[in-house]
Amino acid sequence: MRILSGIQPSGAFHIGNFFGMMEPSIRLQDEGEAYYFIADYHALTTIQDGEQLRQNCQEAAVDFLACGLDPERAVFFRHSAVPEVTELSWLLSTVTPMGLLERCHSYKDKIAKGLTASHGLFAYPVLMAADILIYDSDVVPVGRDQKQHVEVTRDIAIKINELYGEGLLKLPQPRIREAMAKVPGLDGQKMSKSYGNALEIFGPEKPLRKKVMRIVTDSAGVDEPKDPEASLIYQLYQLFAGESDQQRMADEFRQGGVGYGDFKKRLWEAYWEYFAPMRARREELLQNMDYVDDVLRQGADKARELATSVLGRVRHAMGL
Amino acid sequence: MRILSGIQPSGAFHIGNFFGMMEPSIRLQDEGEAYYFIADYHALTTIQDGEQLRQNCQEAAVDFLACGLDPERAVFFRHSAVPEVTELSWLLSTVTPMGLLERCHSYKDKIAKGLTASHGLFAYPVLMAADILIYDSDVVPVGRDQKQHVEVTRDIAIKINELYGEGLLKLPQPRIREAMAKVPGLDGQKMSKSYGNALEIFGPEKPLRKKVMRIVTDSAGVDEPKDPEASLIYQLYQLFAGESDQQRMADEFRQGGVGYGDFKKRLWEAYWEYFAPMRARREELLQNMDYVDDVLRQGADKARELATSVLGRVRHAMGL
Repeated sequence: MRILSGIQPSGAFHIGNFFGMMEPSIRLQDEGEAYYFIADYHALTTIQDGEQLRQNCQEAAVDFLACGLDPERAVFFRHSAVPEVTELSWLLSTVTPMGLLERCHSYKDKIAKGLTASHGLFAYPVLMAADILIYDSDVVPVGRDQKQHVEVTRDIAIKINELYGEGLLKLPQPRIREAMAKVPGLDGQKMSKSYGNALEIFGPEKPLRKKVMRIVTDSAGVDEPKDPEASLIYQLYQLFAGESDQQRMADEFRQGGVGYGDFKKRLWEAYWEYFAPMRARREELLQNMDYVDDVLRQGADKARELATSVLGRVRHAMGL
Repeated sequence: MRILSGIQPSGAFHIGNFFGMMEPSIRLQDEGEAYYFIADYHALTTIQDGEQLRQNCQEAAVDFLACGLDPERAVFFRHSAVPEVTELSWLLSTVTPMGLLERCHSYKDKIAKGLTASHGLFAYPVLMAADILIYDSDVVPVGRDQKQHVEVTRDIAIKINELYGEGLLKLPQPRIREAMAKVPGLDGQKMSKSYGNALEIFGPEKPLRKKVMRIVTDSAGVDEPKDPEASLIYQLYQLFAGESDQQRMADEFRQGGVGYGDFKKRLWEAYWEYFAPMRARREELLQNMDYVDDVLRQGADKARELATSVLGRVRHAMGL
């Protein structure tokens, strides 16, 4: 089973990214042949600064490796190291009905949020289809909001197969990442970099600690009993603490006698400890960027070999 | 001065193509460094049959060489032999406002004519921009209907240069092919393959002769004086005959005494003689397809070298 996933190099990852996307992706590498790429071609629709993009991509590579992506099992590479996807994207475009793209929610949502209506943003699902189809992918893990894009991919592949030969392109299946994805931000809304409510997984200790200690709480006094489920502190603590620690905090919430400041301190410690081994691994990698580059290069070589073969099949069938 | 032009492999060329596009292109190779490609990537939006496309492309190559394209001077290649254009096309897409494409007449015209509204058709101007910009082209000879696409190309290049560095992409100039392009079809309308009124430049003698001899005329008798300017026969004859022959026919039209059948015979002979050297050259080429393949391969090598260098410049600036 071949699993494909793209990673947005959108800057420092936060714990919402970690539990929603990174950690599930890393777990998936046990289940099949994982192809994971850092989606710099896609990122160009929002990051229009060369240095920034280069830096974000390096950060994404280091952070994923630090968090447990294993290059012995997963094929890990930069999107733009396999330019064959842009060619397949054009080939797919020639059979893609405009209506199919016009119906995509994600484009409309992005425009509604104020992003510039660029052709890149509009054509994104076609490039994504090429990303998926060029590796004969079986499974594409996606959030609910991306499910439609896998359906578009299937529609395009079906069209190509009808016109140019059954079985030419393999139809992928979406696999929806559930529930766990909903990590609350430090203000209680969904965690998102753009909301300014994110807690990063890596970074200097002091400002991160400050972020945790400044979580806004209600005005319940130290002695008052409190509802753990209603508290952001407890919700976040559950991500990092073991079961008995969780139980203890829940009990103390209900009994009263412990103030929010203490709970926050405990949350901070659990969070900081949780990422400690990854932080150490990350420091090692940062001292050894040649290794990171090598990993990406070797991943690209492997991905490109497969991409070239699938693309060749399609080119031939289409008369190129 | 670098001149870029794409050739649609739309099947057998007719005399409208010849005088409107082929002959001017071939003359232009004296003026600068000509880059001419057979636009198979674009053709995919209308020809969805691999064998057909392959055959059309071969025919286009042979016919252009037969008509005088000189591979010692012009760089001649297949579009899809330089897949780098599809990558540049994606990069350009990320800065191309949707409005710019939505305003393109050509897309709207094609849809109005009943072509399927595919994303390839819509995105055509972006790929065309990449085609032009990837060779640092100075001049793009186009018909009036394509002028807007060169303007779109300039707009996109200006946007890239603003965002990623002045001078990164060279701004091309359109050069409009004038008047001569209007070759009447055998029914008096504009000559077009899709109107079924075309006279091909190459083909078996008998059916071509029949086409000419069947041109519909008015019912003026042999002895009646006739207006040469109003006659399709005379209009076409002017394309092929020398000045004194033209004068003679015009005089005989005005004097009366010669029937339409005789004029048609004279038109036929002038046409057949005009293309005789090219027909002979074409027969040679058809016996020597390895040579044709070599020309295209060498052209592709040269084009690809230039394309790779321009693309590298853009990739670096954008952070890839």
